[in-house]
Amino acid sequence: MTKILDIRPTLEDVRAALDAGAIDQASQLVANLHAADAAAILDELESDELYEVFARLNLEHGADVLIELDTDSQVELAETLTSDQLSDLLEQMEPDDAADVLVELEPAHIAATLAAMDPEDSDDVRQLMAHDEESAGGLMTSHVVTLRDRLSTQQAIDLLRGLQPEDESVYYLYVVDANDALVGVVSLRSLVMAPAQTQLSDIMDRNVITASVATDQEECARLLARYDLLALPVVDAQRRIVGAVTADDIIDVIAEEATEDMYLLANLPQDEDVEDSLFRSSRRRLFWLFVNLPTAILAAWVVSNFDGTVEKVTALVPFMPIIAGMGGNAGIQTLTLIVRSIALGEVATGQGFRALGREVGIGAINGVAFGSAIGLLGWLWQGKPMLGVVAGCAMLLNLVSAAIAGTVVPLTLKLFRVDPALASGVIVTTVTDVTGYSCLLGLATILIRYLI
Amino acid sequence: MTKILDIRPTLEDVRAALDAGAIDQASQLVANLHAADAAAILDELESDELYEVFARLNLEHGADVLIELDTDSQVELAETLTSDQLSDLLEQMEPDDAADVLVELEPAHIAATLAAMDPEDSDDVRQLMAHDEESAGGLMTSHVVTLRDRLSTQQAIDLLRGLQPEDESVYYLYVVDANDALVGVVSLRSLVMAPAQTQLSDIMDRNVITASVATDQEECARLLARYDLLALPVVDAQRRIVGAVTADDIIDVIAEEATEDMYLLANLPQDEDVEDSLFRSSRRRLFWLFVNLPTAILAAWVVSNFDGTVEKVTALVPFMPIIAGMGGNAGIQTLTLIVRSIALGEVATGQGFRALGREVGIGAINGVAFGSAIGLLGWLWQGKPMLGVVAGCAMLLNLVSAAIAGTVVPLTLKLFRVDPALASGVIVTTVTDVTGYSCLLGLATILIRYLI
Repeated sequence: MTKILDIRPTLEDVRAALDAGAIDQASQLVANLHAADAAAILDELESDELYEVFARLNLEHGADVLIELDTDSQVELAETLTSDQLSDLLEQMEPDDAADVLVELEPAHIAATLAAMDPEDSDDVRQLMAHDEESAGGLMTSHVVTLRDRLSTQQAIDLLRGLQPEDESVYYLYVVDANDALVGVVSLRSLVMAPAQTQLSDIMDRNVITASVATDQEECARLLARYDLLALPVVDAQRRIVGAVTADDIIDVIAEEATEDMYLLANLPQDEDVEDSLFRSSRRRLFWLFVNLPTAILAAWVVSNFDGTVEKVTALVPFMPIIAGMGGNAGIQTLTLIVRSIALGEVATGQGFRALGREVGIGAINGVAFGSAIGLLGWLWQGKPMLGVVAGCAMLLNLVSAAIAGTVVPLTLKLFRVDPALASGVIVTTVTDVTGYSCLLGLATILIRYLI
Repeated sequence: MTKILDIRPTLEDVRAALDAGAIDQASQLVANLHAADAAAILDELESDELYEVFARLNLEHGADVLIELDTDSQVELAETLTSDQLSDLLEQMEPDDAADVLVELEPAHIAATLAAMDPEDSDDVRQLMAHDEESAGGLMTSHVVTLRDRLSTQQAIDLLRGLQPEDESVYYLYVVDANDALVGVVSLRSLVMAPAQTQLSDIMDRNVITASVATDQEECARLLARYDLLALPVVDAQRRIVGAVTADDIIDVIAEEATEDMYLLANLPQDEDVEDSLFRSSRRRLFWLFVNLPTAILAAWVVSNFDGTVEKVTALVPFMPIIAGMGGNAGIQTLTLIVRSIALGEVATGQGFRALGREVGIGAINGVAFGSAIGLLGWLWQGKPMLGVVAGCAMLLNLVSAAIAGTVVPLTLKLFRVDPALASGVIVTTVTDVTGYSCLLGLATILIRYLI
């Protein structure tokens, strides 16, 4: 079986060769690898070494490697290449990959490179670059094979042999009518398996699942996952095919979107990577921690308002972390469930109230169970029954408020078309901190004569 | 474009038909839908209605729908069906799908159903059921087309037409030598495109990426994602092909694994679903909250040890939520980054120390920045410079401990082959709570004469 290549030994060999000035040898080591592995090694090199090694790869492998480089290395390298060198590489790629490389560059370099490309290729690339990167238009390749519905299977196979399409998405062949409108889909498998004289319209599946260029990439992922497809055709308003989104791109999208939601829930910068420089990472994470600061100060301010009560009943202080902490945990449970359900398409917009009712129910049940436990603890530990009542009620109220905040925050963000995970963790834990401290110290203030 | 079908209007029609006793009409509504949508509707019906509607679907559509049902409905339905009915349905499926349905049932029902199946089919299914569900063996289909390396492309196409394979994975054809060992792969595309007399060994790609039956499903997902594949062949120790894992199964795996990690980080039960019953959910979530309780009490106990200090300097209390809260946030940032990097295969086992050094560096830089801010706040708000020093130092120490805990906890769990996300959020926030309170109140105790 294959393991994901551990690139470190080869990377050391490449570095040793470079240090000895043997650039050809270094390049040869990389040339023998799968493009994804070669790119992982080049990602680790300094800008000038990267260029020297890359320049010695043959055009086809070079193009494959360029696609697989991470964005920083890709931009560094593409900016070192002349427009002519770059255009030769881009012509080897699927137009969607070429567009992904170009879109990161300076406008002048983009224009010069497009001008140096074959006009037919550059038109495709230019059109793809116009789409939002996170939409079907931004993901799709425009190289799609379409066939007229009146062809026989043998004619279709002959036509394909003549075209020699190199396309990713040729596993599905899209069947169009005289107006170029999509009427069906034939898998390459059924084309090969069918008797030679069958007409395409007899073997095609008429029920084609499609996207438009504006369809969000998450929606594309849901369609592919739900209907177990390997590719999703993208059509315009007249149902003419403009491209296709393939499963390998969607696999990346699903992993990316999940990472995005996890990072948002943890207030991590979106594109943080374990490979980033120390100062870049700390600066950007610091920003997110500073977003938390006003909310932490708000909680501190709430506490400081009960200074008199705290002074009289210091036994309350140890309960502060318990009540705020458990409220925060419960709020994050609810929040994570709702954010993930939204991402997987399980909670539609109209079903928010049902989800809210359910979460408040769970919060109340768990609040009673937990409040009783904490109440008992308060009574036995400190010997004051009323301390137990105060702590228990604060716990119950805080778990209910955790349920409300954990549901309402992400659903509200979604309603305003903001990512439901964005900063919602901060808001939810602020609500549970403020509610928890207010309830605990507020109830204690009201009932103070039973506590001292 | 297609949208994921909103099943609610059709579900209402189906329910109305069932209430009017028109089972045929209800079944007709479902029969016209894509299997995935039909299953989504059947998932919502009661057990007896589900059976009545399902029994009226034709065999082929019924099999497709049965695969797509959620596990609860699938088991309910399969237990209502006789072994003969069920075996007819399973024979329509890919063996891996049939194994997935069977594995959930009672041993007696499994044995009777396998006995009622065609022996060749049941052998395949029996073998697949033996593998771990989360391994390549559990995911793969055993229907894979293999071709001898000496065949010409035309012979291969003729052979395929004769075989009429219905397999998911026929987009790649695996080429074997005289010993049945895998020697290469030919895409269906290149088979169709190549001149008729070319020998397969001349067009095949010899560099085949493979898995073994025991390969973990996450590793399969990483291989497919890294090398942009649509299927991954599974081989035995002699490199004979035993099956293939396809991209559509991997898409589900990637989404599932991401959900699993997010839920573990939030201490949510693994298979919680917004559709679960209220009491089931609260009971299971309560368990996870109770796991948190001893750690919350530990933090409370730490605080209670400084009762004397708190009593003399109540101005410290509002800083408790700030220092513990920011430490928790920073710890969860680090933890999420490391857990996700492990899942995506970016942190290999040997690279733990590098990651630790990096995180501690970020923690120290952010600790100095944040500690200064909090120190200034402490000084200005309360008019006591030493309060600022205490709060600032506690913040710095807590952010460094957050970095250490956020890195060491998941990497240690991974070393012991436990899921790195399991309960690690609880451990990390306990460390930051305990460190934060100890540093703040401990330093205050040492420096108490400057604070009162």
